[in-house]
Amino acid sequence: MELEIQRAIVKYGMEDLYEYSEVDTLIVGAGPSGLTCAKYLAEKGYKVAVYEKRLSFGGGIGGGGNMIPKIVVQEEVLPIVEDFKIKYQKADKGLYVVDPPELIAKLATGALDAGAKFFLGVYVEDVIVRDNPPKVCGVLWKWTAIEMAGLHVDPLFTSSKALVDASGHGAEIVQIAAEKNPDLNIFIKGERSNWSEVSERLVVEHTGKVAEGLYVTGIAVCEIFGLPRMGPIFGGMLMSGKKIAEVIAADLSKKT
Amino acid sequence: MELEIQRAIVKYGMEDLYEYSEVDTLIVGAGPSGLTCAKYLAEKGYKVAVYEKRLSFGGGIGGGGNMIPKIVVQEEVLPIVEDFKIKYQKADKGLYVVDPPELIAKLATGALDAGAKFFLGVYVEDVIVRDNPPKVCGVLWKWTAIEMAGLHVDPLFTSSKALVDASGHGAEIVQIAAEKNPDLNIFIKGERSNWSEVSERLVVEHTGKVAEGLYVTGIAVCEIFGLPRMGPIFGGMLMSGKKIAEVIAADLSKKT
Amino acid sequence: MELEIQRAIVKYGMEDLYEYSEVDTLIVGAGPSGLTCAKYLAEKGYKVAVYEKRLSFGGGIGGGGNMIPKIVVQEEVLPIVEDFKIKYQKADKGLYVVDPPELIAKLATGALDAGAKFFLGVYVEDVIVRDNPPKVCGVLWKWTAIEMAGLHVDPLFTSSKALVDASGHGAEIVQIAAEKNPDLNIFIKGERSNWSEVSERLVVEHTGKVAEGLYVTGIAVCEIFGLPRMGPIFGGMLMSGKKIAEVIAADLSKKT
Amino acid sequence: MELEIQRAIVKYGMEDLYEYSEVDTLIVGAGPSGLTCAKYLAEKGYKVAVYEKRLSFGGGIGGGGNMIPKIVVQEEVLPIVEDFKIKYQKADKGLYVVDPPELIAKLATGALDAGAKFFLGVYVEDVIVRDNPPKVCGVLWKWTAIEMAGLHVDPLFTSSKALVDASGHGAEIVQIAAEKNPDLNIFIKGERSNWSEVSERLVVEHTGKVAEGLYVTGIAVCEIFGLPRMGPIFGGMLMSGKKIAEVIAADLSKKT
Amino acid sequence: MELEIQRAIVKYGMEDLYEYSEVDTLIVGAGPSGLTCAKYLAEKGYKVAVYEKRLSFGGGIGGGGNMIPKIVVQEEVLPIVEDFKIKYQKADKGLYVVDPPELIAKLATGALDAGAKFFLGVYVEDVIVRDNPPKVCGVLWKWTAIEMAGLHVDPLFTSSKALVDASGHGAEIVQIAAEKNPDLNIFIKGERSNWSEVSERLVVEHTGKVAEGLYVTGIAVCEIFGLPRMGPIFGGMLMSGKKIAEVIAADLSKKT
Amino acid sequence: MELEIQRAIVKYGMEDLYEYSEVDTLIVGAGPSGLTCAKYLAEKGYKVAVYEKRLSFGGGIGGGGNMIPKIVVQEEVLPIVEDFKIKYQKADKGLYVVDPPELIAKLATGALDAGAKFFLGVYVEDVIVRDNPPKVCGVLWKWTAIEMAGLHVDPLFTSSKALVDASGHGAEIVQIAAEKNPDLNIFIKGERSNWSEVSERLVVEHTGKVAEGLYVTGIAVCEIFGLPRMGPIFGGMLMSGKKIAEVIAADLSKKT
Amino acid sequence: MELEIQRAIVKYGMEDLYEYSEVDTLIVGAGPSGLTCAKYLAEKGYKVAVYEKRLSFGGGIGGGGNMIPKIVVQEEVLPIVEDFKIKYQKADKGLYVVDPPELIAKLATGALDAGAKFFLGVYVEDVIVRDNPPKVCGVLWKWTAIEMAGLHVDPLFTSSKALVDASGHGAEIVQIAAEKNPDLNIFIKGERSNWSEVSERLVVEHTGKVAEGLYVTGIAVCEIFGLPRMGPIFGGMLMSGKKIAEVIAADLSKKT
Amino acid sequence: MELEIQRAIVKYGMEDLYEYSEVDTLIVGAGPSGLTCAKYLAEKGYKVAVYEKRLSFGGGIGGGGNMIPKIVVQEEVLPIVEDFKIKYQKADKGLYVVDPPELIAKLATGALDAGAKFFLGVYVEDVIVRDNPPKVCGVLWKWTAIEMAGLHVDPLFTSSKALVDASGHGAEIVQIAAEKNPDLNIFIKGERSNWSEVSERLVVEHTGKVAEGLYVTGIAVCEIFGLPRMGPIFGGMLMSGKKIAEVIAADLSKKT
Repeated sequence: MELEIQRAIVKYGMEDLYEYSEVDTLIVGAGPSGLTCAKYLAEKGYKVAVYEKRLSFGGGIGGGGNMIPKIVVQEEVLPIVEDFKIKYQKADKGLYVVDPPELIAKLATGALDAGAKFFLGVYVEDVIVRDNPPKVCGVLWKWTAIEMAGLHVDPLFTSSKALVDASGHGAEIVQIAAEKNPDLNIFIKGERSNWSEVSERLVVEHTGKVAEGLYVTGIAVCEIFGLPRMGPIFGGMLMSGKKIAEVIAADLSKKT
Repeated sequence: MELEIQRAIVKYGMEDLYEYSEVDTLIVGAGPSGLTCAKYLAEKGYKVAVYEKRLSFGGGIGGGGNMIPKIVVQEEVLPIVEDFKIKYQKADKGLYVVDPPELIAKLATGALDAGAKFFLGVYVEDVIVRDNPPKVCGVLWKWTAIEMAGLHVDPLFTSSKALVDASGHGAEIVQIAAEKNPDLNIFIKGERSNWSEVSERLVVEHTGKVAEGLYVTGIAVCEIFGLPRMGPIFGGMLMSGKKIAEVIAADLSKKT
Repeated sequence: MELEIQRAIVKYGMEDLYEYSEVDTLIVGAGPSGLTCAKYLAEKGYKVAVYEKRLSFGGGIGGGGNMIPKIVVQEEVLPIVEDFKIKYQKADKGLYVVDPPELIAKLATGALDAGAKFFLGVYVEDVIVRDNPPKVCGVLWKWTAIEMAGLHVDPLFTSSKALVDASGHGAEIVQIAAEKNPDLNIFIKGERSNWSEVSERLVVEHTGKVAEGLYVTGIAVCEIFGLPRMGPIFGGMLMSGKKIAEVIAADLSKKT
Repeated sequence: MELEIQRAIVKYGMEDLYEYSEVDTLIVGAGPSGLTCAKYLAEKGYKVAVYEKRLSFGGGIGGGGNMIPKIVVQEEVLPIVEDFKIKYQKADKGLYVVDPPELIAKLATGALDAGAKFFLGVYVEDVIVRDNPPKVCGVLWKWTAIEMAGLHVDPLFTSSKALVDASGHGAEIVQIAAEKNPDLNIFIKGERSNWSEVSERLVVEHTGKVAEGLYVTGIAVCEIFGLPRMGPIFGGMLMSGKKIAEVIAADLSKKT
Repeated sequence: MELEIQRAIVKYGMEDLYEYSEVDTLIVGAGPSGLTCAKYLAEKGYKVAVYEKRLSFGGGIGGGGNMIPKIVVQEEVLPIVEDFKIKYQKADKGLYVVDPPELIAKLATGALDAGAKFFLGVYVEDVIVRDNPPKVCGVLWKWTAIEMAGLHVDPLFTSSKALVDASGHGAEIVQIAAEKNPDLNIFIKGERSNWSEVSERLVVEHTGKVAEGLYVTGIAVCEIFGLPRMGPIFGGMLMSGKKIAEVIAADLSKKT
Repeated sequence: MELEIQRAIVKYGMEDLYEYSEVDTLIVGAGPSGLTCAKYLAEKGYKVAVYEKRLSFGGGIGGGGNMIPKIVVQEEVLPIVEDFKIKYQKADKGLYVVDPPELIAKLATGALDAGAKFFLGVYVEDVIVRDNPPKVCGVLWKWTAIEMAGLHVDPLFTSSKALVDASGHGAEIVQIAAEKNPDLNIFIKGERSNWSEVSERLVVEHTGKVAEGLYVTGIAVCEIFGLPRMGPIFGGMLMSGKKIAEVIAADLSKKT
Repeated sequence: MELEIQRAIVKYGMEDLYEYSEVDTLIVGAGPSGLTCAKYLAEKGYKVAVYEKRLSFGGGIGGGGNMIPKIVVQEEVLPIVEDFKIKYQKADKGLYVVDPPELIAKLATGALDAGAKFFLGVYVEDVIVRDNPPKVCGVLWKWTAIEMAGLHVDPLFTSSKALVDASGHGAEIVQIAAEKNPDLNIFIKGERSNWSEVSERLVVEHTGKVAEGLYVTGIAVCEIFGLPRMGPIFGGMLMSGKKIAEVIAADLSKKT
Repeated sequence: MELEIQRAIVKYGMEDLYEYSEVDTLIVGAGPSGLTCAKYLAEKGYKVAVYEKRLSFGGGIGGGGNMIPKIVVQEEVLPIVEDFKIKYQKADKGLYVVDPPELIAKLATGALDAGAKFFLGVYVEDVIVRDNPPKVCGVLWKWTAIEMAGLHVDPLFTSSKALVDASGHGAEIVQIAAEKNPDLNIFIKGERSNWSEVSERLVVEHTGKVAEGLYVTGIAVCEIFGLPRMGPIFGGMLMSGKKIAEVIAADLSKKT
């Protein structure tokens, strides 16, 4: 039976790796904004892959606020919450509380059922940049285990029409693109200290394209545009994820 | 706004910690067997909590087979797979393949929608044992972060009628109970080398109670009873999770 | 009994966390200057919290001078020493020696008996900055264990009218505020080499406000204003702590 | 001024090291039971030293229960709590809650004001055993920093009439004595799992002498006598500390 | 071009993984005895795979003797040395010296040209044991990077008719088989101190089968049979590798 | 026998160290470009040494593409592949696939048989620069083990007419030369993101001399000249290695 | 000039390695007893080598007593102290104090001037055992750097007529010999707790031969024979070193 | 006896610490130049202390050249070599070879016999700078163990008329002085690559005063003045040490 298990995994797993070498949108990071983006884009029929460096998903959701197991969302984001069938509870002053595991599981299920494909344990180490003027056309990736082990192993490639940095505080993908490719003209201002209500609004406003083929969503937006951060309230993350899906859909439809 | 977020989290998060200090069944480990058990027990109306040491769920599922993104299940387990609405694909010789993220997200969503409550980032460091003859009545736990940081901090308590070790290869909970309490008469035989088809059958057969108040499911069963291990095939895990739910439901109903 | 212990801790501990989400003065660091400040401010009736990243208090006092178990104070600081009921011994040339554990315990007891509230194991990772012109309104914090474990978990908030950086050599809180918020116009000059008698005088002179809502005391003053450091003599620390209490009391009374 | 500071520390610090080379009672560990023991013994006029490996005191108190900042004591221990002037609050079912920093500071202040001498940052690496039948006559110690740095440096000596292991869960001092000196006939049974109400009683009952010149108090008692542990309730610790003070006082008075 | 590179690697690399899921002989360890065995077995037409945990080959050869870049072989092993076209130089008393890189490169080239297939960066974590009486039928393996990173990921399978432990001093494969499967009746005696001339002879004599389906060669033989070790002389390694090839060829031909 | 082995290694190993203190060309790095260069230069009769910091060779080849065991070469590089007798397989679109171990072993064997001398476990920590205008005349090296252990030990010297940096992504040798010797006028632009087809061409074009006595080949060329990187395609590496051999041969023949 | 330096070191350094492959007495450990032994044996004309794993000498002397820079010797050892021209100062009760650096430098100078040869940075990993009945005939060693780096590199050999374990507390050489060679019949009792005056006497009494060809001196004697340890008094160490020199001289003269 | 040992060490060790709180010259680093300087200055009657961070002495001497146990000196330095009674051997071309342990032991013995006082395990973390214009008046130091352990402990002071940085490659003391005190006007150019014959001459020429009260000798000179480094030849180190002794003696005699 071992031989059959082995060959089923090698055969079908590799078909996926082969097939998903080329996607419409590649989202790096399976946190709240990345998963929200994945659902709304996949629903529109685009071929969407999500690369997550850990072996599960949820980004910074799982620890709630300082390990106390609740996170907060605002009233205006309830339509998205309900799209994902997430259970919530009313708190004071227009705020609602959600269990972190509920948010993680439902965001993932929503994105998967919409047709997005997730790859876990995947570390993106660089981007593909080509043409003049330059555009971002995909990524170089390897298993996170290789990165953690410090081994020197060549990465593989994935081609994308739209690459989304949903990697969180460090904006890792945009950082790499900016540092290694001055002609992309990306300047990173660095996240500011906390001012929750202002940040929740600004993060959505600045969600969008940062270079040809390269987009940003979620808390990474704060790093790039010098916005204040927010804390354990996730409304802005979900709205940013939905907005970037709409921006990309509009751009991709123009290209066709 | 920061003050309102802070107070909503402290208030509602703490209500959960207070409320879930006492449960019918406490499952340690949010891998395939723990999540399956959680769903079937919660569906029957029991108050079920799942403690997971990481900040997300899925146990050993996420890495597929050696990072190749597929895992395998057998035909006989399709009813459970379909209960959880997990998408699968037919392979050769009676085997089916599933995407690891699909399995993780749907197992969690199934358990949560059935009413189970998850606590993430929770490290169980000991059990409560009382009475004569002795029975296991709950656990001592702290945030995994405290354990990782090596700080010396007292744990908190959770009381349970049934405690389930779904912690995987090491059978960590049963190990602690056995080592620290000789009068529980638990003897751990140690996992054997791999023999997949035999192991898939034996793991389900041996799933059950190991001491008064203490149960075991999943791969931890192999460690305790000296059974062969299996590899990246998950049918036995799901069937073991379902079986332990039935065993506990029977035991708890007897107590009432 | 375990259930009662558990619920007493969760209930009363959380009431404190809820209540102390908003304070008059938040002091970061339970070393000599922070504890001195806490006593004199709490005595005046202000609501004072002290956040300390370790699980006990005393800052750099405990190791005496290179582990030799004595530290030194000058004659002019004896009134403060006596306020705290600290035992001391006369040495040569106007210097007095104190046992480090005596200094730690009495500073803490003095501050607690005056009504200050301490939270141990608390790591401050950022500040709240709002309004135009900007002012510092509180902090983002999490358990030190989370920081040590390297886990990605959202912090909680505490609101303050006055935030005091009593964090020692690195001036960590002012560093964060300065780096992330250029419009606060804070410039950090870096500590100079040792010149004890001059430093003991200058550190008290420069103790004060560094931005709206943000104050500094103790050795952190040297880092910010480019002053020489001093060594195992603690008079300047105690006087700086007392002075900052007076400065803040004056500022807070103006606001009312 | 630097020269005067230096010489004051060297002169007076070394006088203490010289003077405290020989004590009536040496307590290893400045946690709840060690500090309680120190106060009650020093009050009776004995020369008492406390060696603590960290640079502050409090043992496992500082983190409360899983970082939630409260710990619990029972009604019967209130007389000791009041001896130390510790503030407390009534909870349900005969339990009282205390702030961890309050407990740490007041235990230390109480012991210091009674005349006990603390040495911080001191690591005990072995005991002195002499005569036939053998008795424990003191310890070999070095700065904790040397131990942490892994340097090979010879320890110093301290002579004691009574040596108290108040080192907590591992019972480190009794472990060393037992392993290296079979003729002391000490057998260590290992701590059992939790059963709070039973443990709180048994730990006090078993507090006492383990070999000629060697005593044990606090949670270390559970390790040695195979008792269940208790969790974040500290009544047993304080009562154990008071009891061992009485046992030693009785033994020392007999010797005179 | 990136897409074509990606797909060529995935397609052809996976064909190899699929094809080599089942081999005649699987050799674990690409050191001197493993590579010698690989050449002589592959030459006879057997399907041979070599699994090596590092990303290159050579085992303990590369460092010569204490980094001095020479190793030694005896006269009687020159026929094997010449089979591999390894350049050597005559030293005194019947000894010959060889450059370590020459030995590594030529052993690998010899084995590859004979038709053996190498897989680098492969960590064998367990064996497959089936049937009654039990026999070893293959291994469970994963990328070494996963092991180094400490991630919990399921391994894959490879089926073999003969499994050769050529893993060096620790005899890692036989150790696992012995510890986890008492019914294989393997007892490991532990390597003795050095006695070169005796060891060189005994290691060849004891090279052979240790359980049904499981063979051992090279320095691992000393660990299992309690033989003295030898040092930087490699004649015994090469002769052991050749002998085990002959033993396996004889056994496999019997099975057909 | 041990004494004879010891003395043979010391005598003959040291003769090599003595003899190879002075070479025509010293290549740092035994990856694809370094090994290719070594073969073509040694074939022309030059005295060539290769220093490799690991205890084997192959650079980044061994892990294939993200551990999938294949790498790719283009049609135009087949003549070099055939020079080294490397087995290959035709894939789509003018690409060919090669097994990583085959590439490693054959490159090394090719270079060794051409007369190049390899030293493994050698860490180059600095260069020798002399004369005015300055030229690079050799290196300072020590065993990699010393560097890994963090010990402070003086290096040894090797003199070279041409020093080749074949050290890969970091261009470590040129980095050291540039940072420590401003008068060499070397400016390092930093590698760009991936653009495989362009990079494969540019890396060969820029292969050459960077300062008097100092040359660069392979992926290090991208770091120095600000070129895009390529991924798991190795044609450019082999062609760069061959080109640098030709450049150096031309320069050295001029000197004579 | 670099080439001349390089070749002088290689040539003369290697002559030493070659010449000292065979010695009369090999002492492992350059602490107080090893250095004392080296002087008295070399003075008698024996060929003596000292292997020290660190890059300097002195064993546990350098840190004095808990870093306080003095160590103690007794009156009876003054003749040895004076043989080495070590400056000392009279203290109370028949004790004398010595500066640690003075003791280190003079012991080394004394041994070197008597003709002993030291090799620094040398890690002994095993012994050579041959013949029946078995005798210890030398060691396997490598640079300590290799051991610290965790690299797998073969050791070199040194042949000795007498091997002395002067390695300190762990008795590392005798431990290896005992564990790997049961037929040497060495049983290690483990060091007892401290009893200085008794230990100082017993350690000298038990200094001697532990197996054919293998001797022990210094604190390692306590580990092997189950004696109490002593602390920062070094008289026993020096007397043990002198005694073992006499024992070995007697044994070696008998063999001639 | 333990009590007497303890009190002798505390009493006499502390007298040294007290006495050596104030010295004429403080040399940081017990390598070749620091030890040479110590001898020649102490011989002239100055009160000289040497602070060494390790627990022994010798700096970078012990490892010879890449562990090969020889180092080289030139003919012109033989008078110094003979002053220290160091045994040497003539090599080719005006070079002489010395055994590393011989050089370490004799340099230390020479300095100690001249009256210098060494303190081992001492880490200098800062300097004392006072007056206007500023001058360096001493150091802040603590046990190296404290630094290695990462504990936050206040340092002690030592006052000096001349402070010598003999700390080797990093020029650590001058680095600290330069970074923390811009008004000292010290600019550090960074060491150049190797050019032995030129470096040996320049290092002596540049040996001297770098600020009022602060001097530099040995390889640290190269770091500060941007000179080439040299390798395992030590003539320049010894001559630099002798020169700085002469420079300081001249300066100190002027001050009197």
